[in-house]
This record gives sequence, C-alpha cells and structure tokens, in this order.
Amino acid sequence: MFPLLLFQWFLFLSILLTSATALLNIPRLSPIGPRFLEDPAEVLSEKTSDDLQTFFYNQTLDHFNYKPESYNTFEQRFVISSKHWGGANSNAPILVYFGAEASLDSDLAAVGFLSDNAFRFNALLLYIEHRYYGKSIPFGSRDEALKNGSTRGYFNSAQAIADYAEIIIHVKKSFRAENSPVIVVGGSYGGMLASWFRLKYPHIALGALASSAPVLYFDDITPQDGYYSIVSKDFREASETCYKTIQKSWAEIDEIASKPNGLSILSKKFKTCKPLADSDELKDYLDSMYSGAAQYNKPPTYPVNRVCSGVDGDSGNDTLTKIFAGVFAYRGNRSCYINAPTNVSETKLGWRWQTCSEMVIPIGRGNETMFPPDPFDLNTYVQDCKNSYGVSPRPHWVTTYYGGHSIKLILQRFGSNIIFSNGLKDPYSSGGVLENLSETITAVYTVNGSHCLDILVANKTTDPVWLVAQREVEIKTIEGWINKYYDDLRNQQ
Amino acid sequence: MFPLLLFQWFLFLSILLTSATALLNIPRLSPIGPRFLEDPAEVLSEKTSDDLQTFFYNQTLDHFNYKPESYNTFEQRFVISSKHWGGANSNAPILVYFGAEASLDSDLAAVGFLSDNAFRFNALLLYIEHRYYGKSIPFGSRDEALKNGSTRGYFNSAQAIADYAEIIIHVKKSFRAENSPVIVVGGSYGGMLASWFRLKYPHIALGALASSAPVLYFDDITPQDGYYSIVSKDFREASETCYKTIQKSWAEIDEIASKPNGLSILSKKFKTCKPLADSDELKDYLDSMYSGAAQYNKPPTYPVNRVCSGVDGDSGNDTLTKIFAGVFAYRGNRSCYINAPTNVSETKLGWRWQTCSEMVIPIGRGNETMFPPDPFDLNTYVQDCKNSYGVSPRPHWVTTYYGGHSIKLILQRFGSNIIFSNGLKDPYSSGGVLENLSETITAVYTVNGSHCLDILVANKTTDPVWLVAQREVEIKTIEGWINKYYDDLRNQQ
Repeated sequence: MFPLLLFQWFLFLSILLTSATALLNIPRLSPIGPRFLEDPAEVLSEKTSDDLQTFFYNQTLDHFNYKPESYNTFEQRFVISSKHWGGANSNAPILVYFGAEASLDSDLAAVGFLSDNAFRFNALLLYIEHRYYGKSIPFGSRDEALKNGSTRGYFNSAQAIADYAEIIIHVKKSFRAENSPVIVVGGSYGGMLASWFRLKYPHIALGALASSAPVLYFDDITPQDGYYSIVSKDFREASETCYKTIQKSWAEIDEIASKPNGLSILSKKFKTCKPLADSDELKDYLDSMYSGAAQYNKPPTYPVNRVCSGVDGDSGNDTLTKIFAGVFAYRGNRSCYINAPTNVSETKLGWRWQTCSEMVIPIGRGNETMFPPDPFDLNTYVQDCKNSYGVSPRPHWVTTYYGGHSIKLILQRFGSNIIFSNGLKDPYSSGGVLENLSETITAVYTVNGSHCLDILVANKTTDPVWLVAQREVEIKTIEGWINKYYDDLRNQQ
Repeated sequence: MFPLLLFQWFLFLSILLTSATALLNIPRLSPIGPRFLEDPAEVLSEKTSDDLQTFFYNQTLDHFNYKPESYNTFEQRFVISSKHWGGANSNAPILVYFGAEASLDSDLAAVGFLSDNAFRFNALLLYIEHRYYGKSIPFGSRDEALKNGSTRGYFNSAQAIADYAEIIIHVKKSFRAENSPVIVVGGSYGGMLASWFRLKYPHIALGALASSAPVLYFDDITPQDGYYSIVSKDFREASETCYKTIQKSWAEIDEIASKPNGLSILSKKFKTCKPLADSDELKDYLDSMYSGAAQYNKPPTYPVNRVCSGVDGDSGNDTLTKIFAGVFAYRGNRSCYINAPTNVSETKLGWRWQTCSEMVIPIGRGNETMFPPDPFDLNTYVQDCKNSYGVSPRPHWVTTYYGGHSIKLILQRFGSNIIFSNGLKDPYSSGGVLENLSETITAVYTVNGSHCLDILVANKTTDPVWLVAQREVEIKTIEGWINKYYDDLRNQQ
C-alpha cells in the first residue's frame, strides 16, 4: 500500500473510532465470544478437521443490479468436507454453515454442529464465508473494500444470502447432487441469515437451523431494554449481592472520576495499562465484560459465576475493589487491565458498518437493570452513522425485506422447516423466536443455555444433559424434514 | 433535450433496433394485446373509473446497495380507489395491482379484477406502476433512464417488487390499515411478480392471483417450443385448412423472395406500406400476428377465428393470397399493411432490456409447429444482448432468486395462498403452473381462455360461462384466505 493511502486509511479509522463511540457498545453478535472471554480449556478443545478442502468461487459483486460494475467479481471462500458424505446417488444431505461477521477460520474451529453430525447424516459439509470478511474480500483488499461509500455499498445481507444461493447451486452441480436436501445452519447474525434464507430461497434450502438469531430485535418488535434486562437477570440469578454491587458501582465510578485526580485513582484501582482518559473508558469496558460474560455464559465454567465469585469473594467494604476482584477473577493474573492496546478486529470494523447501514438493532438500557439507564435514541444513532459513513442507516429495511412484525400471524400459514434455537441466559434471546410458529417452524430453547451454545463443538464430558437434549431435538427435527423430503421425492418420480 | 443528446439517443435506438432483430420477436408479455389486435368493441367497453386518485411515492433507487447514489430517489406513481373500502376499523382488504412492462394508464382501463370486485370485498384498491415505465421513471426522463448501463442497471424485477413492498407499507400506514389483508394481483410478467411477491414478502401480501404467469418458462424447465406449439394448436383447432395454409406459406414466401423482383411481388401482394427490405420483415409480421391472435384469443370475437375466416374464405388456390386475406380479415380495410411506420413503444424498449438482462425466456420454434423451425440459441441470444447493451444477460438468475425447478416438490410443503390462473389457448400457458402444488397454492385454468383473460374487465353480456366460473373460483379462493386470516387475527388478539 502506498504511504499516502495508508495514512488516509488510518485517518478514516481514527475518525470512525472517535466519532462513533456510541456505536462501539453494540454487543457483538457472533457464535463465539471474544478470546479473552473464553475458557482456555474450551479453546484447547476446539479442533479443525484435517479433511477440509478450501475453494474459491468467482462471486458476482452485485446480484441486484445490471450496471457494468455490478458484474465485477471477487473470490469467495468456501470449505468442504466430503469425508462422511453418502454420495449423490443416495441423495445424501448437504449441511451448510453460513459464515457471519467474521473470518471463516474461527468458525471452522468452534462450530461443531456440522462435523459432529456429518457421520449421522452421511452429510456433505459446506462452510461459506460471508462477503467482506476473512478471505472473501471484494476490491482486492479489505482497505479498498471498506474505503468509501462506493465500495462498502455492496456489503449487506441480501447480497450475502444471494452469494450463498449461488455457491450452494454451484456445489450441488459440481457434486451432481441436485436432489440432495440442503440444511442451512447459522448462529447469531448467521442464524438470522439461515432463517431468512429458508424463507427467501426455499428452492435451495430444505430447512434451516437458526441458533440464537435475534430476528425480532428490529424496529420496535422487541423492547429496547431486552438485551440488558437479561444480562442483569443472569447476574442477579447468579448472585444477588454481586448484582447489587455492580448496580451501585457506576455511581461510585462517576463520583471518583469527578474528583480532582479521580481518573488516576481509578486507573490505579483497576491497574489500567494506560491512564484512563475518561470514566467512560472504564465503564464501557465493564459493560462489555458483563454483557460478554452473560452472552457467552457457557458450561462448564459459566463466566457470570466467575465474575461474581470475584466480586463476592472480596471481603472488604469497598465497591470498586470488589468490581476489580471480578475483573481479576475473570481475566486472571495479568500485568495490567482494561485498556490494553488491541487491534480493531475485522469483525468490529465490518459489523460496525453493517449496523450503521442495514442491521439497526435498537438496544438500550432501561431503568430496571444493573446498568445506568441509557435509552436507545434513533436520531442520535442515525447521526453518528452519518458522521462515520456519510450515509444514513435504513432502520426499517430488515422488517420490510425479511418481516418480523406479527411473525406468528404471518408464518403460521406460510413456510416450513425452520428451527429457532435459543438459550434463555443469552441476552439476545430477548429478540429471538421463543414459541412454535407452526408445526414445522419451531422454537427450541433451554433455560440455562447461552449464545449459540447448541451449534458449538460438543463435549461429551462436560456438556450438561439439557444441552445434549436440545441438540437431539434439533437433529431429530431435521431428520424428520429430510425423511419427508425423501418421501416426496419418491412420490414425484 | 440538447440536440447532441437527442442525436445520441437516436443513434442508440438505431443500433438497438438493427443489431437486435433476433430480440424483436420475443412475444409480448402484457395483460392486454397490442391495440391493432384488439376488438374495437372491446376497447370501447374499457372504462376508467372516476374515483381514482393518483399519488407519487419518493422511491429508493437501489434497495440492495448502500452507495451514496443508491439513496437517490424517483417519483413512483400509484393510484388508489377508496370508494368501496370498508375502512381500517373493520380490517377491510386491500387489493393491489402490480404494474408490469407498461404505463399504468393502459392497465387502469383494461384490468377489471380489482374494480369489478371492490364492492364485493369492500376493498381499498391500489394500482402501482412498475419502475422505468409510464410516469415512474428514474433519472428525470426515459431517455436518461435508459441511456446507458449505469442508469439501466436498476431496472429489474427484484428492485421492482421491493418498490411494491415499500409502497404497500406506506399506503397501509397512511390508511392506518396495518391489519388489513393485502391481495396482490398481476397478469403475465406482472403475474410472475405477484406470485414471487407472495413468496418473498409473505409478511406484506396475504395472497396472490398470478394470471397467465409463465413462471416456469426459464432455464430448461419448459420445452423451448412450448409457446409456438400452442399457437399452432390454436390455429389447427380453429381450422385444419387454415393451419396447413399457414404452414406451407413460409416456403412460398422464401421462394418468391429469392426470385429477381421477388420482394416487390411480395410487397404488392401484401399491399405493404413501404417496399419490403427483406422477406424477414414480412415473416416477422405474420409471426407476430399469429402469435398475438393466439395469445389474445378473446371472446367474443376470437382473433384466431378471424384470421382463419380470412385465410379459409379465399376460394382461390394461391397460398399467399389466402394469407393476405387473413391479414385483411384481421386488420380490416386499410390503405396499406405490414410495415406501417410505428413508434417504438415504451413497452418494447423497456421489455427488450428486461429480457436482455434478467428475464431470459427461451422461446424457440421446434419441428412440430406451423412455423419454420428456429430453435432458441442461448449463445446467439447472449451475443445479441451484449451487442445491444454492453452487458451479458444472467439467464439463470430468475431460477436462482425465485426458483422454478421442481416447483411442486418445493412448494408442496412451503408457502401458501397463490392462484396460478391460465387459459390453455394462451401460448404462455405452456410455461404456467397448471396443477395444484398444495392445498393453498392452486392452479385454475380454462381450456378456452386466453392471456390474462380472467383479470380483464368483466362483460356481463359477452363473457362465456366458463370465464365467469373461473373468476368465481378465484374470488371464492381469495375470500377463503381472507376469512382464515381474520380467524387467525382474532385468535391472536
């Protein structure tokens, strides 16, 4: 890259990161938590199968336009495992994982639903990376792709699922598997894509498993404080004292911060890597930590318990000492905490654009949580996005294109073969589908489950009974779809 | 317009019209026939209701992109009649007509399904014009809009039905009719849009009446000679001698044309307005006349019979004299025939682009028709389109985005509330859905019906019993959808 371009890029990033602080706090929406939130033991148990083959598909840049530049293409990555496939002659199924707002690499290691069930289904496995992430970047490089409005414009969900349609058709042709049923699987944003794909492309996917997909967290369908209400509930259920300590900590942080020298007191108390520039830096960090712990509150260690064991374990009277004990319990022994320099991940960069254009998820903090109230304000949000990207979000487009309002009224007599799975400890479950919409569009949830837990790699020794049972319901349901399809196929031939 | 631009425009048109002769012969796909094919009495019976109100919606240019220029807007026309509407309080239905490849004006006069049934349904009527037609033109003018690849690119069906989604939501909001069920109605290309809309936007339309929609005339789903087979069958059923005369006429035209002075002999025989430039001019005209007569073979006059009464009525032995007698019978007494100067209609201009980008309908002539064989050749087609427009068609996109292959296998367990109506005399019925796909996705056809006949203005004195019966089945079916919806609505409240 030329130095000047590099400079412009950094300038753009800096403007983005400083002007859009309100946007920094959108809870992440990925199947897997940030590394530092994860249990090291869990991370070690992840495995990438060695029978995966990587391919690249020459993907159309714009499926919905016929301008000359719409015909530009980019290399889109997909990964296949045919180890357990029963073959085209037996119309053996194809399980497809929809990449979301991350490189496919991380998902290949963490998502287990496909590899864990390949043998049982005799399935061909296909993993597809989402455009603008990982190695599936248009315009030659990520810098070019995200540089300006002209290159970012193609970065949206409708284009992404059209990509998936093309690649699935391509793979079915390559394997002469035209009659093989396709089941699409995704988690979080990828779960939304999976359910929307079944609705928009029923001729390509027979069914969808949408794990922890907050398809109802748009417009005003779900109360804005749904997310933080559940974070708070998780902490309260883990420990009432922990919850109360966190609840009163915000005012104490503000109080100390308002004193002369207050920020340096806080910096010392929390062993920050750099002196705190303002108290928001600390509060945002804690907010993210609590939210992440709740969202990815996985067995066997349950991060919420870990935080609370720290908070409750300190025998003193000082609230902020307790809070820091929570940070310490959670992150372990380190030289410093809170504001360690980190790179802005591609997920953060990409998802920020997506939430500022199409995926406007109105998350606010109401009065009934352990957080200071901070309602979602659409006008501010739109203005922040405009400042960052030059264009306005389209906050009603998701419900216009995909629906969501009165979902049961609509889908009880339309569509079929979607599982909406959730864990009720996951704050995003507040925007999920938690009741059966019809006989074949069903909700499967667990009271103690966390974000996308069901589609992560199974662990025979540590997975609780209720998780094993949830997965079994999902697999049985999918088997039912496939068997019905085979009956239909035989009957028409 | 500046003279230079005007010149460029004519230059573009001339290149288009000369380079794309192969494209000129795609049979039209509109609810109503070309003026000269219509029964004058029928035309007189058309009426435009005086309670129609016209509005314009500020429509997004590109729904699937977030470039700054995607946010440009244009004024899209829609027309409303609330004369018979039962009102929002009673959740009275909304019947929506989807404009197709023509100005809305012509449809408002000819399409009767909405106005004829407004009273019975207590329905609000909404007619929406298709982008790039009539008064719904982006970029300020038709010339600008169709000028080059950059402006034409937004002219496609996915954008068009997204427009319809936005306008229906807008109208429902304006009338506070959020709970009113919406039934979308369209004919021909508009019928495809209606059925696709129900599949893609079930949260906006409760059901669709897709009249004469050849949704299966894509890829290789329908045999390429389906269209001309039915044209031939229509003529053969009307008169075996007429059919045979037409069948042998092509060779005679070629034979005469190959003689010195042959073209001037033909020009005289057919009283052409200008001397024929080649025999294709004559053959294309006759092809269009036969196809149009078959497609729009409406009661009470049945144009195919009219042509054949001419062909068969001439008592001589000369084949081409008989053929001219057919032309004369069909068009009436005129000063000249065949190649009278006509303007290139906006429908022809617009539809040619649509068929050269997205709506690739492979119609060829096989060996078993009354026409000379002329198989559809995709390579030639693609090359012609490239020459005309600079970009390649995407011949598989319609089946990728909307489906079509194995339609019964797919839709027997997915979706609901679509009527595919057809008349089997209509050559496009060969690409239509002619069997029930499920209990609620049904086919309603008449043996003697023609293109879009069921949605044209009803005529109490001349409509045959079978047509009245077809419409009654459609109306009863739609009433059934609406009643079930009201039950569901009550049950959820």
